[in-house]
Amino acid sequence: MASEQFPEEISTTEEKLLFIQTLVKEEQSNEVCSLFNSLTENELAHILESFASEDRDKLWLCVPDNMRGEVLAELNEDARLGLLDGLEVAELSEITKDLDAQDTAEILDSLDEHVEANVIEQMDDSRREEVQSVLAYDEDAVGRYMHTDTISIREDVKLEVVQRFLRMKGNIKQDTQELMVVDADNRLLGTLHVVDLIRNDQEHFVHEFMEPPQSVVDSMSAIEAAKQIRAKNLHFAPVVSECGVLMGQLTADDVLELTLEESGQTVMKMAGLDEDDDLFAPVKKSVNARTIWLGINLATAFLAAAVIGQFEAVIAQVVALAVLMPVVASMGGIAGSQTLTLTIRGLAMGKIGGSNRTILFKKEFWIGIINGFVWALIVALIAQLWFADIMISIVIGLAILINMIAASVAGVIVPLILKRFGQDPALSGAVILTTVTDVVGFLSFLGLATVLILN
Amino acid sequence: MASEQFPEEISTTEEKLLFIQTLVKEEQSNEVCSLFNSLTENELAHILESFASEDRDKLWLCVPDNMRGEVLAELNEDARLGLLDGLEVAELSEITKDLDAQDTAEILDSLDEHVEANVIEQMDDSRREEVQSVLAYDEDAVGRYMHTDTISIREDVKLEVVQRFLRMKGNIKQDTQELMVVDADNRLLGTLHVVDLIRNDQEHFVHEFMEPPQSVVDSMSAIEAAKQIRAKNLHFAPVVSECGVLMGQLTADDVLELTLEESGQTVMKMAGLDEDDDLFAPVKKSVNARTIWLGINLATAFLAAAVIGQFEAVIAQVVALAVLMPVVASMGGIAGSQTLTLTIRGLAMGKIGGSNRTILFKKEFWIGIINGFVWALIVALIAQLWFADIMISIVIGLAILINMIAASVAGVIVPLILKRFGQDPALSGAVILTTVTDVVGFLSFLGLATVLILN
Repeated sequence: MASEQFPEEISTTEEKLLFIQTLVKEEQSNEVCSLFNSLTENELAHILESFASEDRDKLWLCVPDNMRGEVLAELNEDARLGLLDGLEVAELSEITKDLDAQDTAEILDSLDEHVEANVIEQMDDSRREEVQSVLAYDEDAVGRYMHTDTISIREDVKLEVVQRFLRMKGNIKQDTQELMVVDADNRLLGTLHVVDLIRNDQEHFVHEFMEPPQSVVDSMSAIEAAKQIRAKNLHFAPVVSECGVLMGQLTADDVLELTLEESGQTVMKMAGLDEDDDLFAPVKKSVNARTIWLGINLATAFLAAAVIGQFEAVIAQVVALAVLMPVVASMGGIAGSQTLTLTIRGLAMGKIGGSNRTILFKKEFWIGIINGFVWALIVALIAQLWFADIMISIVIGLAILINMIAASVAGVIVPLILKRFGQDPALSGAVILTTVTDVVGFLSFLGLATVLILN
Repeated sequence: MASEQFPEEISTTEEKLLFIQTLVKEEQSNEVCSLFNSLTENELAHILESFASEDRDKLWLCVPDNMRGEVLAELNEDARLGLLDGLEVAELSEITKDLDAQDTAEILDSLDEHVEANVIEQMDDSRREEVQSVLAYDEDAVGRYMHTDTISIREDVKLEVVQRFLRMKGNIKQDTQELMVVDADNRLLGTLHVVDLIRNDQEHFVHEFMEPPQSVVDSMSAIEAAKQIRAKNLHFAPVVSECGVLMGQLTADDVLELTLEESGQTVMKMAGLDEDDDLFAPVKKSVNARTIWLGINLATAFLAAAVIGQFEAVIAQVVALAVLMPVVASMGGIAGSQTLTLTIRGLAMGKIGGSNRTILFKKEFWIGIINGFVWALIVALIAQLWFADIMISIVIGLAILINMIAASVAGVIVPLILKRFGQDPALSGAVILTTVTDVVGFLSFLGLATVLILN
């Protein structure tokens, strides 16, 4: 198939996506297929993820045979499952045969167990062993992400010899940044930057320029490993086993991808969404995925309603309370979510811990008090202008003050407690916080009204 | 000052921070000062940002003189302003004298205009010119972030000659990944990977392995540039002027930092916080920063209250409506925020645009209808068990249905409209959406009640 090119003004993936959407709409599938030849596997995955599943199935036929495996490995879980559905074992074996063990494991994991077993059976012995060793890692472990095509050298050779060795070897990847220095048992002794290979006198030895290994362990969480690597101001790192044997490396690509995954997770989790959620997943799947969150929210909403239910008497007598009720809850909710977001982000960046928790708490507490007083006054004034009832104004002012202080305190404490108990603050922090501000808001507002207004 | 070392088990910045916090608490400032000598400028900035401003001022005295400039440049705006406050022109000149022009500009931008002018006056002519050319860029432009210490070579020399040139030159940075190939007018012709310098026959010429330049323009937005670079599956890129002259490069470090900045912005913006907000900013500053958001929220909360105010008659007659009111608003709010987050993230990742907007809209619309029916039934059932009033149950069921559909529709449309009008969906999306779900929720619930229940 002739490979057509994108018009020259189109360069980013986003622009390519728009261009392909237009062609799909005009049903010019030949053009699409030939353009697909000029895309990278990342771009292909991005574009496939941007189509609804029916179109995705059609577009899949345009993906060049030799890229199908890599594209599948690159796709999010939902999209991959959709495309894998209905593929035969023979096709799957064909698609995965040239993939590295990591990508193959990624795809195999999405298959039904018996299909997976059949595909593994088709492999020759050495490949089967390699793939199974990757499958043995936890799904989020470094071993699932690492690249095994590192280049090992010895420490007692001259730089010139290393250079000649590399030229002879031939297949070094262009993004190689460091060479692994290992001993006879393949234990990692250190690393040598390629730049050091060039900029130093060629008669010197590797060990003179070797740096101590800043490695991560293959069995640890990959996102945690990426965080550690960034914390050391590095962009990549060798991967070793528990006993120090070189297993592979996390490349700059891997670290960036893991970093983006982590930061994307925060946004999605705070809305109770799965980080891997497919933008164009089938309706049924999305409905199911969001059910838990809506269910939890319903429970907390009825909890708030139950609080209000305790005060029917006062509401029946002073209907203005029902009118103003949401203002108290809403101001507390916003104040709390600001503190919560700041705390969650500080935790994620590793800036909160030890003695500064108390300082943060005190600071947010004071913000709660000051903001509480300011907004209590403003809200009381508006309520007075609206209902001209000084008792209502006093009650709502006090309730705003109480709720905004509670919100600030909860905004710091809730994520810290969640973290202490090994929970992810981004996941359930918001729903707990809203419950606190709703309950405290309604309780203080209607409770005070009962005491001060109800006859 | 003798440089003490951290205990061996302490390796990440987070652990170092905790260790230093303990020392600060025990007032062992000598130990702190000597440990500071073993930290990088990134680590120092991270640690300073993790202390409240009083401690920060004291710790600043421990920062080694030769690193102060780089640490200042690295700090967030708030923390930097706090430390700069009170520094004399002479001190500022001393601190910035060994910095590159980018870091110097970053610091100068935080100063009062006349102090800035004074510091610039102290510079010698060539440095002044260099710094002013950086200051001429927009604050978020590539020119403010790029590194200018690139290595230029010509296309018609042998690889072997390039290697010898690099060894002679001596001061190549270790993280150098590509060399810039330029013509006599310093126009960028292409790039040569350092790996290509090693792995190919040394008798061949640069132009044989040179790759076409994948450059970004110095005047464009840096975050946009980082996005483009990532979209091409690259980690760094040369920077050129409008007319193609080599100006510098964005390194892998820059791209990662810009990427993290962008993703952090989304989380913070959705809570109405400034992305650069200092975790330990003085209370007064934080109160001011959050005022606008609380003010906007107050306006929308009173809008919702005004809607309820229209229905005092029906509430006075059926107090159960006041009790159940928050359930309708809350379910709509959660359903809407899920759709909103998905849409904002899809937009940020460049996956939404062109014809798939309609598909996304239809999908979320159907989710709204299905979820609406399901939760309408559940809520109506609970309401029936609680109040045993079939009319109330019907009214709340219908209101939940209407509000969840409205929430799904608004969750897609609001961010798309904001983006169309050049607004950032992450910034105001949530507050607009909550307003929609509150107003629609109260209006449909109390409106239906008025029609169906009020006598």
